[in-house]
Amino acid sequence: MDVKIINPFINATLHVLETISSTKTSPGKPFLKEDQKAHGDVTAVIGLTGEASGTISVSFTEACILSIVSKMFGEEMTSINSEIQDAVGEISNMISGQARQKLESLGTTLKAAIPTVVTGKGHSITHITKYPIIAIPFETDKGSFTVEVCVETNNGKKG
Amino acid sequence: MDVKIINPFINATLHVLETISSTKTSPGKPFLKEDQKAHGDVTAVIGLTGEASGTISVSFTEACILSIVSKMFGEEMTSINSEIQDAVGEISNMISGQARQKLESLGTTLKAAIPTVVTGKGHSITHITKYPIIAIPFETDKGSFTVEVCVETNNGKKG
Repeated sequence: MDVKIINPFINATLHVLETISSTKTSPGKPFLKEDQKAHGDVTAVIGLTGEASGTISVSFTEACILSIVSKMFGEEMTSINSEIQDAVGEISNMISGQARQKLESLGTTLKAAIPTVVTGKGHSITHITKYPIIAIPFETDKGSFTVEVCVETNNGKKG
Repeated sequence: MDVKIINPFINATLHVLETISSTKTSPGKPFLKEDQKAHGDVTAVIGLTGEASGTISVSFTEACILSIVSKMFGEEMTSINSEIQDAVGEISNMISGQARQKLESLGTTLKAAIPTVVTGKGHSITHITKYPIIAIPFETDKGSFTVEVCVETNNGKKG
């Protein structure tokens, strides 16, 4: 998969978290997800279709998302409840929306499905595809989260 | 959401499980998912777009999916591993594919995204939408699984 596809997701993630919760994040080096799994405590999954099929997932550790949503709401959040789940869906929708807007300006139009949010301590995420999956780890001062992107573009098939 | 949208998913689920693993299932009464959450040990999520946005999730308990995949493979599966995750993705892809084919013949064309499979004991699933979400519980002789469907058709908005 092309770096042209990944950069819009990195930039959208940085921008969305800065905007909605004044959370500065630093992206780690994106890596090709082989046997490694992302683990999280709450994950949003958004399917993508259009010129290509794809999926994006955003997986937060509990400490990280509690900190982000506490800043968003201006009140201390202490556990993963329905407000947190809605916020994770909304954050992921915004990341997907901004990234898709940029991709469209580069010539690839993707539509997004309804976000689905999964909650459960230490779950793992697997995307069922023969195409490369790129994982981008992000660090905040309260812990980490991971954005995973797969878009089945014709020039990116693994084998 | 219209029963015309739900029935193809019920029929596809019965047909796929019977075909690939000789598993007879009986659907329970579909219910409108309000505060109730589906819980599962392994869940596939497939985003839908096209004439409407949507999502389908299929959540299995561990005992149920181990039994189904053991029958598929003709060998005893004892834990949720990558083969089980791939099988859950494939089963869900087949359900989505058959249901979408039927829906297309009824006049609604939906495209499917890449399936994402979540693994983690007792996780819960939330779809982020203002539209109704229909949950369909299924029973097998080795335990239960749940199919959830939301399609944001214009005649189905809640509020």
